[in-house]
Amino acid sequence: MSVIHRFCGNENAFDWEDVKSKQYPDGAAKGASGKILIGNAEGAEHFVFRYFCIAPGGYSTLQDHHAHDHGVMILHGHAQVSIEDEQYELKPRDIIYISPWEQHSLAAIGDQPMGFLCVIPNKTMLAGLKGSENK
Amino acid sequence: MSVIHRFCGNENAFDWEDVKSKQYPDGAAKGASGKILIGNAEGAEHFVFRYFCIAPGGYSTLQDHHAHDHGVMILHGHAQVSIEDEQYELKPRDIIYISPWEQHSLAAIGDQPMGFLCVIPNKTMLAGLKGSENK
Repeated sequence: MSVIHRFCGNENAFDWEDVKSKQYPDGAAKGASGKILIGNAEGAEHFVFRYFCIAPGGYSTLQDHHAHDHGVMILHGHAQVSIEDEQYELKPRDIIYISPWEQHSLAAIGDQPMGFLCVIPNKTMLAGLKGSENK
Repeated sequence: MSVIHRFCGNENAFDWEDVKSKQYPDGAAKGASGKILIGNAEGAEHFVFRYFCIAPGGYSTLQDHHAHDHGVMILHGHAQVSIEDEQYELKPRDIIYISPWEQHSLAAIGDQPMGFLCVIPNKTMLAGLKGSENK
């Protein structure tokens, strides 16, 4: 069954109908909140759409290396993106593909929150692939 | 290796550095062009990021039922979305999850082009899952 989430936010804080927000504890990240726009609740088995909003001066965690990749579109604000040893300043509508196992972090620079769409493969799908590789 | 595509378009015709455009022949769709933002060229094995731009009065094809699902974010313009027997008028930043096997089409209404991000699972990944289901 298909699902629609209509936008109901503003320029600096995106929000959608029938989507809940999750605050991340400082330490894992700083000043970061997230929403799952498309995921298990929508019945999506192959990918997950997530929106993250980073407060000015905040950042997403420099995660440990992991097997899944990310597809990112900057949606609002001014981003500083770190991928391994490289840093990039990015703006709304810029696209980033972050390969598996590359260490990465996104920070909000300037005085406005920075928001981005982040797509990852669904864990179920990754598990299915790993299973088939083992056979 | 991660990849960045910086935005270089305008409000009514999105474009990115180092991304080529593909025009779809009328019949398959009307007034539609597409770009692959993240896909095999970027080394992405799990999902594909595509941007479609539909000219005023145009539409994407009412595709045959197919096994893959879509995650969509409207990016600009005014959309009329058909999913099975339902129709919805949508605006920028609205989110749509289109389930597998549900017939669907996106049309540009009003006098501006309508653009959207459309994410699908990578064929390689789908093939891997199908293989594991058969075992």
